[in-house]
Amino acid sequence: MAEISREVTGRIVLQQCLYAKLQVKPPDQDSEAEWVEVNKGMVIYVCFFKGAESSVIPKMVSSLLSVKLSESDNGKRVSILDLPGDVLIVPQATLGGRAKGRCMQYHSNADKVLAMELYSSLIAQCEKELQAHSKWAESGAVLKYGTYGNRQVLKLDTNGPYTHLLEF
Amino acid sequence: MAEISREVTGRIVLQQCLYAKLQVKPPDQDSEAEWVEVNKGMVIYVCFFKGAESSVIPKMVSSLLSVKLSESDNGKRVSILDLPGDVLIVPQATLGGRAKGRCMQYHSNADKVLAMELYSSLIAQCEKELQAHSKWAESGAVLKYGTYGNRQVLKLDTNGPYTHLLEF
Repeated sequence: MAEISREVTGRIVLQQCLYAKLQVKPPDQDSEAEWVEVNKGMVIYVCFFKGAESSVIPKMVSSLLSVKLSESDNGKRVSILDLPGDVLIVPQATLGGRAKGRCMQYHSNADKVLAMELYSSLIAQCEKELQAHSKWAESGAVLKYGTYGNRQVLKLDTNGPYTHLLEF
Repeated sequence: MAEISREVTGRIVLQQCLYAKLQVKPPDQDSEAEWVEVNKGMVIYVCFFKGAESSVIPKMVSSLLSVKLSESDNGKRVSILDLPGDVLIVPQATLGGRAKGRCMQYHSNADKVLAMELYSSLIAQCEKELQAHSKWAESGAVLKYGTYGNRQVLKLDTNGPYTHLLEF
């Protein structure tokens, strides 16, 4: 049995991908939808809870980039920095939901202003840490991310998603 | 802040899909890979922990099928039974991982014999409940599932994954 007893301020679900494509701007009268694309690497779905503080971001970034959550071509577990691989960050407020009867409730989620601020900070600090790691920065790997508040239309291609949950 | 204080015996991550394709038999010398496919519905990634008992399965099935986790064509939240939509169940032991330093550990996961038994039971009870619901059964919707122990090579196409976490 997994015993869990603590307060959670951020929740992340991670999946490995070979390729992923995410809509960052929906189509409108004047223009087609805009998308970002990544190749081999990982997709990070992130949600913040009420009470989350900016101090959670460095912890998230450290875990996301340093923990061995990716699989190298020879099947060894390595960090995304050492893979080196692409990173796609997707805001995903639904991850904060809790079932109450037949409905999902999102009462613990951070409000939109706070969540957007933390989301922007997560992206900025990930970018900074990735660029500071020469193996990653020189590999041609990229960081892409979804637009907060948009519908996250996503296409994903995996060689096994290796879905992980990280809580902070 | 989301306060979590309890023992968890099963963990599920759910995503909405428009289409998904999962490998159920890898290619070998004599034959090509075998796949299952689903259309609009949901993908269920499931993991069991040590101490999980068969009594968890009816609770899981009830939540998975009755909670409003899907989006109808007019944007209303409905259950998968009422959508009605396809279901793809994917065994995902990595969901039981916990970061220890730079490595993920899986010490809380149920052993393979128990996990396989619970996984089979989850599929059987989902199938039974789905078929018992005439709206679902008569809609042509399907239940598909991955082979326990295989690499879960997955392709996913969404109109927004609406990733949810359910713990039991």
